[in-house]
Amino acid sequence: MSNISTTLTEMLEIEHPILLAPMGSAAGGRLAAAVTHAGGLGLIGSGYANVDAIKREFAEAGNARVGIGMILWALDKNPGALDVALASHPPVVMLSFGDPSPYAGAIHDAGSLLICQVQSLSQARQAADAGADIIIAQGRDAGGHSGTMRGTMGLVPAVSDAVAPIPVVAAGGIADGRGLAAAITLGASGVLMGTRFTAATESLWNDALKTRVIAAGGDDTEQTRVFDIVRGTPWPEIYPGRVVKNDFFKEWHGREEELTAAQDTVGERYSGTSPEDVSIRAVWTGEGVDLVRGVMSAADIVEQTVDQAVEALEQGVRQSQRKTP
Amino acid sequence: MSNISTTLTEMLEIEHPILLAPMGSAAGGRLAAAVTHAGGLGLIGSGYANVDAIKREFAEAGNARVGIGMILWALDKNPGALDVALASHPPVVMLSFGDPSPYAGAIHDAGSLLICQVQSLSQARQAADAGADIIIAQGRDAGGHSGTMRGTMGLVPAVSDAVAPIPVVAAGGIADGRGLAAAITLGASGVLMGTRFTAATESLWNDALKTRVIAAGGDDTEQTRVFDIVRGTPWPEIYPGRVVKNDFFKEWHGREEELTAAQDTVGERYSGTSPEDVSIRAVWTGEGVDLVRGVMSAADIVEQTVDQAVEALEQGVRQSQRKTP
Repeated sequence: MSNISTTLTEMLEIEHPILLAPMGSAAGGRLAAAVTHAGGLGLIGSGYANVDAIKREFAEAGNARVGIGMILWALDKNPGALDVALASHPPVVMLSFGDPSPYAGAIHDAGSLLICQVQSLSQARQAADAGADIIIAQGRDAGGHSGTMRGTMGLVPAVSDAVAPIPVVAAGGIADGRGLAAAITLGASGVLMGTRFTAATESLWNDALKTRVIAAGGDDTEQTRVFDIVRGTPWPEIYPGRVVKNDFFKEWHGREEELTAAQDTVGERYSGTSPEDVSIRAVWTGEGVDLVRGVMSAADIVEQTVDQAVEALEQGVRQSQRKTP
Repeated sequence: MSNISTTLTEMLEIEHPILLAPMGSAAGGRLAAAVTHAGGLGLIGSGYANVDAIKREFAEAGNARVGIGMILWALDKNPGALDVALASHPPVVMLSFGDPSPYAGAIHDAGSLLICQVQSLSQARQAADAGADIIIAQGRDAGGHSGTMRGTMGLVPAVSDAVAPIPVVAAGGIADGRGLAAAITLGASGVLMGTRFTAATESLWNDALKTRVIAAGGDDTEQTRVFDIVRGTPWPEIYPGRVVKNDFFKEWHGREEELTAAQDTVGERYSGTSPEDVSIRAVWTGEGVDLVRGVMSAADIVEQTVDQAVEALEQGVRQSQRKTP
């Protein structure tokens, strides 16, 4: 298969510049290990600094070299979860949605690299100051939680310019090789993909969720807080989550205060529904979902993405004529 | 200088796959002519189907081959403006923000190509059905008016797949050659740039606006309806405009109903302010604005963009290794 070598692949000692987004609901140890075995780097999700999940999914990854992603506002409430994660000697710890600076020292002391995911240019500068080794520029095009302020297209080159020579990884709306090629030309050293991997064979998602994401289009998605409110997960309001607009979304989106007031009863009803009921349950999905067309193994996703990216770059060069100086 | 040949450059018989966004406030005949002379294609803005502006700016363009952009909901109120535009034999007519189908026949009969700008995948399919020769996929990353539903990164490949072989042009968050290269790898045949050209020497913008856009960053922008409300321009609510967040924005954004009720008095005060007062007046700006760093001629912008795009594509290929079959 083809490959693309960047600052990111060198720094992480991986073959392909593709990282698995550490999605709590999908990116368990099995999927993370599969992405790593395919030549990318798998990151397991840790939920809300959930120590049991961290131990379980690292164990599930076996001997595979996988990193971990942590949600900062949750880690702030349970900082000991970082020690549990570091005990598994992850090559990288990715921190998102808060201030990474209190944890940078411990991560570096443990010999791990610090990846900071940011949603704006000002956050990127703060992450660089905090000692990030790699910065993920995540646009609101992303599935699941992200910011509202910036789109991937303009954010990636701006962050790349601002934090050079720190390698930048593009996230949000990227689900195939064209997106990887675009990220590379925008100045990134690789991509973080979530939505595409939710439908991977090795994903923790159930079949109903995978079927829904394959059928969905980007026009069907929107950022919302209603699933955080109903589940009682105290996400900061500035980080809504992008989902497929289903019946539950349509009932409550725009009525957040009312839902907050009714959380007790509605929350109980919500958690009583089947995890396969995609008309009610959150289907976290990014705007790249039009490009997700079937269940494939993580290995096939990585290979297809890289092959397509190289083809897209070569096609671009074939269309180009260089100036003669 | 370098160049990139695509379906778009062939269809439009231009040298470079760069179109000027027909921004009412900036894209007069002078700027449109300059983009055309530089090897791209200039499109003049027609405001709200303003017949005087159409005649004046086509005259201002002199003998340069320039197209025109029209806002569909405004054209619906004054359909005769299309005949005025077609009398100047534009190579292309670009229609945005409404249903293009009533006008496709007249445009084709006049020998012009029909460009439809869309903000979602479903709109792209409708534009293809309406007979669009070229489709612009505009993400909410764009400056000025756009949709809210889709970001550029995921929209462009999805539209490209859906409407092939109709050429697709990417718009929103693109302000330099890295964005052009990314558009090409995403499957587009070129780009439509607005924000970068607002700061061009030949732009209609005054110096205060140009200075503001050069200083602004993408983090400083947001989509809002307040400037449409205060100016009494009846934009459909689904098409807000992205601006630099200034004092007027901060006073009224989120208080749209109140502003609507007070439009008489606040509108009079607004229009009484200096067009150079960037703390009050709308500074229409896209998220690519971090990449706009000075006033340059349109010719230099086009040349620099293409050179940088070719360099970005070649750099991507240098990092790639093709699979050996």
